[in-house]
Amino acid sequence: MSSRIAVIAIDAVEPRLVAAFWCAVLAWQVVDEDADVVSIAPPDRSWPAIDVLAVPEGKVVKNRLHLDLRADGLATADELDRLLALGARRTDVGQGPDSSWVVLADPEGNEFCLLSRSVQEV
Amino acid sequence: MSSRIAVIAIDAVEPRLVAAFWCAVLAWQVVDEDADVVSIAPPDRSWPAIDVLAVPEGKVVKNRLHLDLRADGLATADELDRLLALGARRTDVGQGPDSSWVVLADPEGNEFCLLSRSVQEV
Repeated sequence: MSSRIAVIAIDAVEPRLVAAFWCAVLAWQVVDEDADVVSIAPPDRSWPAIDVLAVPEGKVVKNRLHLDLRADGLATADELDRLLALGARRTDVGQGPDSSWVVLADPEGNEFCLLSRSVQEV
Repeated sequence: MSSRIAVIAIDAVEPRLVAAFWCAVLAWQVVDEDADVVSIAPPDRSWPAIDVLAVPEGKVVKNRLHLDLRADGLATADELDRLLALGARRTDVGQGPDSSWVVLADPEGNEFCLLSRSVQEV
């Protein structure tokens, strides 16, 4: 008897743009869409999904929630190249030059990290 | 060949407090802890985990990422009572009185929603 995480919601000024980026990053697909929200999910519709929600306001400070990713099926360096080609930008949140992860931002500046495989899997 | 979501990271001024709240909400447990991060995960260690990261700055604006929850194993109204008893607070992000979800905030003000079961499962 508890709650479970059903959806990760991301506010966006341009939901289609942000949803398309995350679909490409995660190899997910759009499963529902209207004027206010674009829902994306893994092909097997497994949990959780992401709802990209239309909001009028842009991002103004570093997000307090972010996603940490790991490369799946290819080397981390190759996945980094792929993410940058998809439109991810490197960003500095004070992580320092020796961190084992790379801090990136999506098209609306939402920070996310690409973790090294050397970090223990949880 | 893509990335997968490994961790949802939450910044916190008091990581232990925030981690304890989310453990109680999700029926998860602390799996790792040091001065900078408290990691929590489901008992079966299934994906994804949450890392609660120590940061000096507090929350200043509505989060652009948030979690949507569903009650698991009990009625939504009963789960709402349980979340409020755990320290969740109702908060207003302009959702209006007729929305099918309840907007809440964790001990550091991070917004999250408890979805109604009437919404289609994804």
